[in-house]
Amino acid sequence: MPPGTEVKDLVSQALSLDSQDEAKELLDDLRPEDIADAIVRLEEEEKVQVLNLLSEATGAQVLIELPTAESKALIEQLPDAVVAWYLDILPMDDALDLLEDIGEERYNDLLNMIPEEDAREIQRLLRYSEGSVGRMMTERFFESFPEQTMDSLLGDLRGAPIEKYETVNDIYVLDNRRHLLGVFSLRKLLRAAPSAVAEEVMNDDVVVAQANDKAEDAARRMARYGLYALPVLDERGRMLGIFTGDDAQTVLREEDTRDVLALGGVTGSGDSYIGLRWYQLYQRRIYWLLGLFVAEFGTGMVMRHYGQGELQINPLLLFLPLLIGAGGNVGAQVTTTITRALALDEVRLSDWRRVMGRELLVASLIGLTLGFVGYLRALLWGTDPRLSVIVGLALPLIVIWAATVGSVLPIGAKRMGIDPAVMSAPFISTFVDATGLVIYFQLARTAVEMGFLVLPR
Amino acid sequence: MPPGTEVKDLVSQALSLDSQDEAKELLDDLRPEDIADAIVRLEEEEKVQVLNLLSEATGAQVLIELPTAESKALIEQLPDAVVAWYLDILPMDDALDLLEDIGEERYNDLLNMIPEEDAREIQRLLRYSEGSVGRMMTERFFESFPEQTMDSLLGDLRGAPIEKYETVNDIYVLDNRRHLLGVFSLRKLLRAAPSAVAEEVMNDDVVVAQANDKAEDAARRMARYGLYALPVLDERGRMLGIFTGDDAQTVLREEDTRDVLALGGVTGSGDSYIGLRWYQLYQRRIYWLLGLFVAEFGTGMVMRHYGQGELQINPLLLFLPLLIGAGGNVGAQVTTTITRALALDEVRLSDWRRVMGRELLVASLIGLTLGFVGYLRALLWGTDPRLSVIVGLALPLIVIWAATVGSVLPIGAKRMGIDPAVMSAPFISTFVDATGLVIYFQLARTAVEMGFLVLPR
Repeated sequence: MPPGTEVKDLVSQALSLDSQDEAKELLDDLRPEDIADAIVRLEEEEKVQVLNLLSEATGAQVLIELPTAESKALIEQLPDAVVAWYLDILPMDDALDLLEDIGEERYNDLLNMIPEEDAREIQRLLRYSEGSVGRMMTERFFESFPEQTMDSLLGDLRGAPIEKYETVNDIYVLDNRRHLLGVFSLRKLLRAAPSAVAEEVMNDDVVVAQANDKAEDAARRMARYGLYALPVLDERGRMLGIFTGDDAQTVLREEDTRDVLALGGVTGSGDSYIGLRWYQLYQRRIYWLLGLFVAEFGTGMVMRHYGQGELQINPLLLFLPLLIGAGGNVGAQVTTTITRALALDEVRLSDWRRVMGRELLVASLIGLTLGFVGYLRALLWGTDPRLSVIVGLALPLIVIWAATVGSVLPIGAKRMGIDPAVMSAPFISTFVDATGLVIYFQLARTAVEMGFLVLPR
Repeated sequence: MPPGTEVKDLVSQALSLDSQDEAKELLDDLRPEDIADAIVRLEEEEKVQVLNLLSEATGAQVLIELPTAESKALIEQLPDAVVAWYLDILPMDDALDLLEDIGEERYNDLLNMIPEEDAREIQRLLRYSEGSVGRMMTERFFESFPEQTMDSLLGDLRGAPIEKYETVNDIYVLDNRRHLLGVFSLRKLLRAAPSAVAEEVMNDDVVVAQANDKAEDAARRMARYGLYALPVLDERGRMLGIFTGDDAQTVLREEDTRDVLALGGVTGSGDSYIGLRWYQLYQRRIYWLLGLFVAEFGTGMVMRHYGQGELQINPLLLFLPLLIGAGGNVGAQVTTTITRALALDEVRLSDWRRVMGRELLVASLIGLTLGFVGYLRALLWGTDPRLSVIVGLALPLIVIWAATVGSVLPIGAKRMGIDPAVMSAPFISTFVDATGLVIYFQLARTAVEMGFLVLPR
C-alpha cells in the first residue's frame, strides 16, 4: 500500500467503527510506519484512541516511528505497565530511543518492571554518549569460535530463539577473549563443506566501528563500503555488538536534515517537520534571525559611516540591508524547511492547509519580534521616532510576505511536478528583496503623503 | 583502515616502487573505495599508472567508485578489450553506470565484445528511463516456486554459481507466470522444517516497487520500512528483479546532495565535489547567478521608481541590492557546496589548498562575468559611465571576497571541531553584506576623492 492519505482515511474509518474488534482488525493489517504517519495528522484525542486499538506489539512499533515530540506526548498518557511492556519487546536500540522520549523521571521505575537481563543491557548501552555507535548498537549478533564447524553453526542457528539475533546474515568469529578475528556470510556458511571450520571460511579484513565513534561517521563508512552492518569493538578490539544498516540510514537521514536546515539558518534536530509544534518552529528560527538582525545593523553602520561624507544617504535607506536581510533570511528558512520535508515525504501536498496555517502563525510571531527589536534599535540609533515606527511596521509585513512566498513556491512547484528544491533559497531571497522593498517604500511614501513622516531632501 | 590521506600515501608509495609486483601487492590489499579516493587526489599521469597496476577485478570496482568525470576521463585512455572485460565482471547495475560514463559511441562496440546473454540483460535494463528503478535493479535474485521444499531450495542455493545472485538474504516465491506471491528470509528457510514448502513459509505482504517508479521514491520507501531490498515488478505484477539497499543508499545520497546544492543555488548532479573540474563548478553556479542578477535589477527598478518622488536616492545606492545579492548568493553557493562535500567526506581538511585554489579561480571567473554584465546593464540603464565602471569593478572584488569567506569559514569550523553547517548560508550572506558594502563604498569614495567620479549632492 502506498503511504499517505489512504492510510489516514483507513485509520479514521477504524475510529468511526462501532465494533472495537473490527477496528482492531482493520488497523492490525497496516504497517506501523503508515499508522504513525496517519497519527501525526489526527486530532489530539484521536491519537490515544488509535494507540489503544492496536495490539501491544504494533503499538510499541508505532511509538518508535512517531516523531519525538509526538511519542513523548503520547507516552505520558499511557500507564507504566504498558510502556514497560513495550520497552521489553522492542529491539534494544529502539528501546533506548523510547527511554529518551520518557525522560529521567519514569526511567528507573520502568527498568525495575522489566526482566533484569534486559534492564542491564539497556543500562550498559546507556553508558555510551549520545550520538555514539555504542548507544545505537545491538548486542544480539550471531557469533562463532574459530574451530567451530559449519554443521555445528547451522545447529546453533536452527536452535536459537528467533528474537535472539537482530540479523544473522553475517557470522562473527571471536576468540575466547572476544576479540573479533573475522566474519563470513550466512551464504558462505551454506556453501562451505559441513566439516569446514569458521577460521577457514572467514574473511579477516573487516571494516569495524569503535563504540565511541560518532554514529554519523560509522554510518557514512558503512554507506561508503556498501555494507549492511558494522561490528562494534571496544578500545581493546573486543566485539561488543553490531551497528545495523537500518539504524545507520536513520542516523544519516537525521544528520542530513540537520545539515540542510542549518545551511538554511534553522537550528535544531532532524525531527520530522510535521511532528513539530508551532513554538518549536519559532524557537528553531528566531535565534539565528535575531543574531543576523544584530549583525545586519553592522551593514547599516557601514552605510551611516560612508553616508556622512561625500555620499549623501537618505536615512530611510540606512534600513535597507536590515529589511532585505530579514525577508531573505526568513524566506530561506521557510523554503529550506518545507523543501526538505517534501523530499522526505514528511509533508505531502494534501497537508498544504496545515503547513500554510502554521507558517503564517510562526511568521507573524517572528515578524512581531523582529519589528519590536527593529523599532527599539532604530530609536536607540537616534533615528526619527516616526521613521522608527515605519521600520517597525515594515518588518512584520515583509517577514509574513517572505514566509508566504517561501512556502507557496516549493509546494506549488511540487504540485506542478517540478523539483521543489529548484525554488532555491537564493531565488526566494531575490524575489523577496524586490517585493519587500515595495512594501517598505510604499509604507514610507504613504506616511509622507499623510504628513506623518518628513524626510530630509 | 580508516579512509583518507593514509591510503593516498600508500598509493603514492606503490607508484614509487621499482618492482611492479611489489606495487601490485601493496595496492591489492586496499579497498576499491579507498583507491578511488586516492586516485582523485593524484596528478593526471599517475591516475592511469595506478589503474594499470591493479588486478582487472579491482580496477573495474575502482572505476565504479570514481566520480563520473574522473572515470569518463580514465576510460577514454583504456583499450576497448579491458573496458569490455570490466563490463562483464561487474554487477549489472554497476555495468550500466559504466556504460553511461562511456557514451553512445563505444557503447555498441563493447556490447558486441561481451557474452550475448549479458549484453541482452544490459539492453533490457537500458530500456527503462534514467533515474527509474528498472534501470538500477539487478535480475539476479533467488527465487522459488510455491510448492518447493526448504530442502530442495537449500540444494539450489548450494549448487548455484556464487556470482549468480547479488544477494540471497531473501527468497522470492513466484508462480509459473512469474507473479510475485511472497517472500521469506534465508534465516526462515534454515529454521523451517526441511519438508516445509515455500508458500507455507512465505510472508505475502510485500513492499514492492514498479520498474518505472523513480529510484528516489523507491529508495525512500525502502528506508521508511527499514528494508534492505525491494522486489521490482512490471505493470502486470510479474517480478523483474530486485533493487538493493546499497544502490538505494547511493541514490539517496546523490539526491540529497542535489537538493542541498539546489537550495544553495547550485545546479547539477550529485557528483562528488572533488571530482568536478573547475569549468563544471563555474557552469553549475553561473546560470543561477545570472538569473538572480537580472532579477535583482528589478529591485533596483523599485528603488528608481520610488527614488523619483519624495524619497531622494543617490544613484550610487541603486546598485546596492545588486551588489549585496551577488555577494550573498556566491557566498551561499560556496558554503553550501563545501559544507556538503565535508559532510560526505568527499573533501577533507588536508584538501584545503586544492579547494581554496579552485574556489578562487572559479570566483574570479564568476566575478569577471558578473562585473561585465553589471557594467553593461548599468550603462544601458543610462547610469553615469564612470559610476558604471565602479559597479563593474566592485562586483568581481565582492564575489571573490564572498567566495573566500564562504570557503574559509566552513573549513575553519571543521578544523576547530565545529559542525561546518553552522556557518550557514544566511550567516555568510549577512557577513558578506556588510563587508561587501565597505568594498563598494570605499571604491566609490576613492573615485570621488581622485576626481574620477562626481556624485549629485
